[in-house]
Amino acid sequence: MHMLEIPRPYLIFIGDNPEPLDVKTGLGILEWRPDWCMGQYRFDGGCDLGLRDFDPHAAAAAGAATMVVGGASFGGKLPPNWEAAIAEGIEAGLNVASGLHDRLHSRPHLVERAAAKGVRLFDVRSLPPGFSPPVASGVRRNGKRILTVGTDCAVGKKFTALALERDMRAMGMKATFRATGQTGVLISGGGLAIDAIVADFLAGAVELLSPDNDADHWDVIEGQGSLFHPAYAAVSLGLLHGSQPDAFVVCHEAKRDQVLGYEAFPTPDLQACIDLHIANGRRLNPDIRCIGVSLNTSQLTPEARAGVLAAVEERLGLPCVDPAVTGTKPLIAQLTA
Amino acid sequence: MHMLEIPRPYLIFIGDNPEPLDVKTGLGILEWRPDWCMGQYRFDGGCDLGLRDFDPHAAAAAGAATMVVGGASFGGKLPPNWEAAIAEGIEAGLNVASGLHDRLHSRPHLVERAAAKGVRLFDVRSLPPGFSPPVASGVRRNGKRILTVGTDCAVGKKFTALALERDMRAMGMKATFRATGQTGVLISGGGLAIDAIVADFLAGAVELLSPDNDADHWDVIEGQGSLFHPAYAAVSLGLLHGSQPDAFVVCHEAKRDQVLGYEAFPTPDLQACIDLHIANGRRLNPDIRCIGVSLNTSQLTPEARAGVLAAVEERLGLPCVDPAVTGTKPLIAQLTA
Repeated sequence: MHMLEIPRPYLIFIGDNPEPLDVKTGLGILEWRPDWCMGQYRFDGGCDLGLRDFDPHAAAAAGAATMVVGGASFGGKLPPNWEAAIAEGIEAGLNVASGLHDRLHSRPHLVERAAAKGVRLFDVRSLPPGFSPPVASGVRRNGKRILTVGTDCAVGKKFTALALERDMRAMGMKATFRATGQTGVLISGGGLAIDAIVADFLAGAVELLSPDNDADHWDVIEGQGSLFHPAYAAVSLGLLHGSQPDAFVVCHEAKRDQVLGYEAFPTPDLQACIDLHIANGRRLNPDIRCIGVSLNTSQLTPEARAGVLAAVEERLGLPCVDPAVTGTKPLIAQLTA
Repeated sequence: MHMLEIPRPYLIFIGDNPEPLDVKTGLGILEWRPDWCMGQYRFDGGCDLGLRDFDPHAAAAAGAATMVVGGASFGGKLPPNWEAAIAEGIEAGLNVASGLHDRLHSRPHLVERAAAKGVRLFDVRSLPPGFSPPVASGVRRNGKRILTVGTDCAVGKKFTALALERDMRAMGMKATFRATGQTGVLISGGGLAIDAIVADFLAGAVELLSPDNDADHWDVIEGQGSLFHPAYAAVSLGLLHGSQPDAFVVCHEAKRDQVLGYEAFPTPDLQACIDLHIANGRRLNPDIRCIGVSLNTSQLTPEARAGVLAAVEERLGLPCVDPAVTGTKPLIAQLTA
């Protein structure tokens, strides 16, 4: 295994981002892994996520293991003052993790100093150095798997997977979120940004991501793209095949009637979406089934929500939840139904 | 457009390969593009493809444009005596094209000499230098498209596409073979080895490969892998979506009952294969349809062949040909049916 594993706890680097919404990754880590966040490091004018403030040396002294770049920068670039802050983190003995387009490894002085200090740099957008995924074997693994799939990009596949993991654990089940995108990798401290992988090795990488496990253990695998997406369906199919899911959840956003950026393409009917996932997925797991729908209802009024969820349940004969509002327990109940 | 275009005519480099079967690419070029082959260059003991013998300087003087490495080497390596022959080709003013694992561009002295002589090096296994495929648009292009798909790898998708192009042209139709693998690229002098592409950009690269064309022009696109392959289905779906085919041909080898190297996976039923391609393909082209089956019958006795082809036709209600024996005209007839 050469999956990422980012040492914890984290010092969240905010820099000069004034708006919490621009520190999305930091907010995500804080929401899903609050115990891992030991503090925040911000410049004058940087927003407050409510964590204790540290500079890198004080954070290292207080036990921080990794400084995580918690927000986006303009155009994904590494601004000079961020670069200086990262160098400071390295000097303090911290590992550094970043999802910026501008890779830490593209800065020789950072790479050199990290090697000299014995700390690691994680560019979660690219593959770990030296990682070369195998061709998929198609062999079934032990343990169980859920995949979150979608009608489009950005409909809540990551959120749903994280919510399932949280609710399953709260119910005493063994569950592990498996990240397949950079934000998920930073939130969960592991996984692989699979959109960086050459198509021939995609399913093989996903097999590595979700290895053999206990018979009663569930991997909850973050989906990407959509089988119905005009550009990204190949990624979604590699993920569906490599995951060999026993169960899947269809994620959708209420009122999303067209694929984002592709107005000519309506989002698929939910039943058609279920059917196509079964048609493709049963090749690797003949028992694949849909356990329900995760509907992001943030575009609906609170009054309209319950009726919309109930109508979907009625039409499909499957539970329909909004994980941010109702949680995911009705979906989980299907696993033993 | 940044697709490859390899200048012609070709000097086929055979080297010391004693067996024509080890000079497969050379044989393929000779079969499908005989007019492009002006000669062969071989060492003592190298086999004879029946072309006129030249050394690189004599070939250049006789009008050769590109020296094409026509065969495989042990482990895909570039042996020292081949490297010397390639250097000789460059000195003679020839471009050089190769599908070896060991890239021409990995040899600085070759790259340097090629630049000095003003000739080009083509490593058809990797993307052309500077080529960065776009994200697919999903927009329909003018002209028509056929894709050859398969029940497995190595069932005749490239052969079928080349045979369709030849037969369509013989019938006075406008048709262009579009290569998606290294051998097809060398045979046809253009295209793209799409298995080198990161999954997010796969469909986008295929859109480039088969651009707008005349309303009565057919691109015949070489398929890769199979939607039913446990490792490579992602490649096949990217190709299906990016091609937006109006028509597809299912390629299969008679008696291939299991996926090569994946004994646990039976090759799919032909009707199931047609159905899954339509289920996935109609998202990008609602008019997609199957025009028939291309069956490689090389594992059957000549006596058994006709009966097997007829039985498939009967069962599916579609033409079934072996392009190496019967040609592809019954498939082409379906295009106007």
